[in-house]
Amino acid sequence: MQIGMVGLGKMGGNMAERLRRAGHDVVGYDRDPKVSDVGDLAELVERLQAPRAVWVMVPSGDPTRATVKELAALLSDGDVLVDGGNSHYLDDRKHSEALAGQGIGFVDVGVSGGVWGLENGYALMVGGDPRHVEMLMPVFRSLKPEGEDGFVHAGEVGAGHFAKMVHNGIEYGMMQSFAEGWELLEATDIVTDVAGTFKSWRSGTVIRSWLLDLVARALQEDPDLSELKGYAADSGEGRWTVQAGIDHAVPLPAITAALYARFASRQEDSPAMKMVAALRNQFGGHAVSAVQGQREKGADAPGADVAPPVDPQG
Amino acid sequence: MQIGMVGLGKMGGNMAERLRRAGHDVVGYDRDPKVSDVGDLAELVERLQAPRAVWVMVPSGDPTRATVKELAALLSDGDVLVDGGNSHYLDDRKHSEALAGQGIGFVDVGVSGGVWGLENGYALMVGGDPRHVEMLMPVFRSLKPEGEDGFVHAGEVGAGHFAKMVHNGIEYGMMQSFAEGWELLEATDIVTDVAGTFKSWRSGTVIRSWLLDLVARALQEDPDLSELKGYAADSGEGRWTVQAGIDHAVPLPAITAALYARFASRQEDSPAMKMVAALRNQFGGHAVSAVQGQREKGADAPGADVAPPVDPQG
Amino acid sequence: MQIGMVGLGKMGGNMAERLRRAGHDVVGYDRDPKVSDVGDLAELVERLQAPRAVWVMVPSGDPTRATVKELAALLSDGDVLVDGGNSHYLDDRKHSEALAGQGIGFVDVGVSGGVWGLENGYALMVGGDPRHVEMLMPVFRSLKPEGEDGFVHAGEVGAGHFAKMVHNGIEYGMMQSFAEGWELLEATDIVTDVAGTFKSWRSGTVIRSWLLDLVARALQEDPDLSELKGYAADSGEGRWTVQAGIDHAVPLPAITAALYARFASRQEDSPAMKMVAALRNQFGGHAVSAVQGQREKGADAPGADVAPPVDPQG
Amino acid sequence: MQIGMVGLGKMGGNMAERLRRAGHDVVGYDRDPKVSDVGDLAELVERLQAPRAVWVMVPSGDPTRATVKELAALLSDGDVLVDGGNSHYLDDRKHSEALAGQGIGFVDVGVSGGVWGLENGYALMVGGDPRHVEMLMPVFRSLKPEGEDGFVHAGEVGAGHFAKMVHNGIEYGMMQSFAEGWELLEATDIVTDVAGTFKSWRSGTVIRSWLLDLVARALQEDPDLSELKGYAADSGEGRWTVQAGIDHAVPLPAITAALYARFASRQEDSPAMKMVAALRNQFGGHAVSAVQGQREKGADAPGADVAPPVDPQG
Repeated sequence: MQIGMVGLGKMGGNMAERLRRAGHDVVGYDRDPKVSDVGDLAELVERLQAPRAVWVMVPSGDPTRATVKELAALLSDGDVLVDGGNSHYLDDRKHSEALAGQGIGFVDVGVSGGVWGLENGYALMVGGDPRHVEMLMPVFRSLKPEGEDGFVHAGEVGAGHFAKMVHNGIEYGMMQSFAEGWELLEATDIVTDVAGTFKSWRSGTVIRSWLLDLVARALQEDPDLSELKGYAADSGEGRWTVQAGIDHAVPLPAITAALYARFASRQEDSPAMKMVAALRNQFGGHAVSAVQGQREKGADAPGADVAPPVDPQG
Repeated sequence: MQIGMVGLGKMGGNMAERLRRAGHDVVGYDRDPKVSDVGDLAELVERLQAPRAVWVMVPSGDPTRATVKELAALLSDGDVLVDGGNSHYLDDRKHSEALAGQGIGFVDVGVSGGVWGLENGYALMVGGDPRHVEMLMPVFRSLKPEGEDGFVHAGEVGAGHFAKMVHNGIEYGMMQSFAEGWELLEATDIVTDVAGTFKSWRSGTVIRSWLLDLVARALQEDPDLSELKGYAADSGEGRWTVQAGIDHAVPLPAITAALYARFASRQEDSPAMKMVAALRNQFGGHAVSAVQGQREKGADAPGADVAPPVDPQG
Repeated sequence: MQIGMVGLGKMGGNMAERLRRAGHDVVGYDRDPKVSDVGDLAELVERLQAPRAVWVMVPSGDPTRATVKELAALLSDGDVLVDGGNSHYLDDRKHSEALAGQGIGFVDVGVSGGVWGLENGYALMVGGDPRHVEMLMPVFRSLKPEGEDGFVHAGEVGAGHFAKMVHNGIEYGMMQSFAEGWELLEATDIVTDVAGTFKSWRSGTVIRSWLLDLVARALQEDPDLSELKGYAADSGEGRWTVQAGIDHAVPLPAITAALYARFASRQEDSPAMKMVAALRNQFGGHAVSAVQGQREKGADAPGADVAPPVDPQG
Repeated sequence: MQIGMVGLGKMGGNMAERLRRAGHDVVGYDRDPKVSDVGDLAELVERLQAPRAVWVMVPSGDPTRATVKELAALLSDGDVLVDGGNSHYLDDRKHSEALAGQGIGFVDVGVSGGVWGLENGYALMVGGDPRHVEMLMPVFRSLKPEGEDGFVHAGEVGAGHFAKMVHNGIEYGMMQSFAEGWELLEATDIVTDVAGTFKSWRSGTVIRSWLLDLVARALQEDPDLSELKGYAADSGEGRWTVQAGIDHAVPLPAITAALYARFASRQEDSPAMKMVAALRNQFGGHAVSAVQGQREKGADAPGADVAPPVDPQG
């Protein structure tokens, strides 16, 4: 089928390529004229035959919102707009409602797959009206991996991005679990072949998984991860998952722990722990401001509640 | 090679069977005479040719400790005892030291595989002296799954059980992550095909894993898990992982969250939350003991700090 | 000074009374005509001399928003509106901006004190333009407790409610800390006088506090808290604190733990733990749906990975 | 009454002084001859009239264990030994049992008070046989603060240290709660007078407490805590509290969060977060080892799943 693809970066470009390999007629637009088939969105829309399908694959937030708005002015009754970026599910509802007034359909798609997607296919989580989803099935079938899995029509508008958001929340918790296990193994000297242990777990264990494969590969390349800093960015979707949990009174302690660990990893020094240190200094009954003095105080430390310099053995 | 297997339950029995299929000469002992090849441990030891290898596969804790002690009195210099149960790694050290005095080797093996192990092989994490491990390699090669993974000589005595313990800690965190994601999806009505969403994730996603396969299968059999209670036991190994973290000052927030969620799942009513409720009642300035009155109080609730029954719109 | 008070419930009514005792001229409005001085908000505004000060003390959310909107249409250039309820700080900004267009000032006040406030005074956290705050100082001085503390002009508009929100977040963490300590003492039989222990801590310890006084009193009235259910509501402010933390990438693990414990306390049965139970059943290689069978399974339990019914001492 | 005091450091020395001011006959021993009344423990015991009372106030762990052992060889039937240090409650049981064989009583006392104890008294949590506790009541009455609180006979041997341990666990959670609230206030620019806000909370609020007084004082001395590092030691008692929780299947999420925050504060760089970073790099399909490249990757980040450099507005 014919489809317009807006955004031809690493994700959108590869998806366009996968669709072309499958025989679809893809008209691509990107602000970079070297990769773009058309000069602007108006030309993109002109090139497509009604009813049109336009897949937006640009960064979430303002870029997506602006693109949807611009396309809304160009598309017509019966067309369908797909947001395949990492948008918030509440944005989807706003976009869907705004477009519905003009008879334009809206479908949200959570996409997973990264750089392997071109060859192996992209996992697709789709939200939208069954009529609109049906219209796009030829494209979905070509993008998804082979086999029975890798595609779900998860529910109405927003369900695709909500499902992808939860997927990423689970991913946070799983990554944190592996990371904690690795830190514990590294902190002791009991297991001497840590990299080999992770590699061995790839077969026959309960935790075998694609993430474990990546852990094993990372440790093969750099057994101590000495080339890396303990610094981890967080995507919007991890935060959104926790916020959705709070909104629905669902406790998410492991996923939240993973999110907080990332927050903390980006702090040079923990402000909260400064306060804890300040309180421990106060226990001494007087201010201790020098950093070197700080480590020896604390009312609840054995060295404070109990006479520190006493050796009763004389 | 020849090996004695002590404990022919679901695990030990299947492992003995897998070894026999591979051509090993297994002499099995179990307190159930119907499955036992010998009448007692003394007869087992007699039946084996020195240097002997005896694999203990009985419940961890007292049963394993008692078995090791009994075997210590029967085995001789040059023999090797294997503990394949879920023992604590500090027990391994004690057993190893006790046996070393008599020249008996000790090897600890963390085993994963469950009911699928007979056909697919068991993942083995091994701790011990290289000499003793080498002696047992024919057995390990037959027990492990096919392929390059599924076996590691993780380090000295204790390393096998320590690695298995950490494996289980990671497993706790991963299970909790899936469980939290599922609860969030169930708590909202945005994603209407929750079971289908989990099933779809089995291909092309970051979280694809054997546990995800189990999640998908569980939801296929009972989409709302309505047949189950939210009650989860915990094995010793989850607790041991957290304790090892504390002993080594390693923060394990996600794994600990998983452990605490299991603790809480076994409480009829949370004592801590009784105290929180009691404090909220105290905010009212007087004791409120009746349960029905309890839900409307609390100094920090909008309905308490602010006049609840006022509608200024008249 | 003269002030209008909108909302004469437990909080607003007592605050009006405290102001009157201090000599202020309070005109009160409530939808309940029995306690109201005027028939409607229009009459309230008429009764006040310009520049007017009107204190809104109604439930946060829609009631406050509607009251502010109605008053905006009645007040004039130079008047000041005070929101003393538990509004979100972002609401304050919207209200302030909307009123500023008409020259009406806006001050937000976080109020703490509950039923003791009438006699002991209310802690006030104030946000707003210094001009507007200055105009209200006579009222603040009369409402606050005696002494140098109990009042802060925390910052611009929103700062008062933000400070109160963080106060409540800290309160969540403190209550949870006491609750956990109590649960641990109750779970063991080592400390036999738990109520006496809490009472004793009121003097000479690091944790002495008003909340500890309440704990001690609650345990005096009902040593086992047997009259209470482990059920705790949560106010918006606990959730808002965690959300503000996420928005600013500030990890709040203890406060979040307190919030999640309240969420969990309101669940009959934990959905997440149903999934954990389902996975443990899957480990058995087959579905186990009956609740009675559920407690004995699990691949990571000693009773599953290791042959359960073996007693090698046989 | 007459009492021997072993260990005359900051705690033991002040306690001896407080007892002398109250008229007790204190014979002190310290390895520092300048402060010691006797040359060794044997001389200390000789100087006391039977039945003797000896209070051990030395660092917990090996120093206390060695002191108890040495005293056991010197004391006689009818004497009582008091351990006022921060010992683990399970040590108390061992000590009590060892001494009971010789007819020597054992009492464990958790002591709180720090540098203020000399003037204000020490909070005492006492475990032991009522006969032994009764014998020591004159000393306890002189050490405790004035008023009805500050002393509890919490239970049998071990109960005093167990109660003190839980006190410290609660203290961890409370300190963490204040620290988190402070970090959130500092992270935003909404509340501009953070130090003033904490100070104001000392009157009329739910969170007023001795710890809040210390927070306010610390911020008065150094409003940004700029002189401090975010580094916090942890005493054994925080770890013991969490371990006791695990042993009794009691979830302690807030107290554990406080402990883990201290662990993390002492890490230069988080090993776990190195692994998370490594996994995010793997998502890119190739190893990225340079630190500067690390911050822009990640399969779940908008900049990875979605084409990063696209601006569809062209």
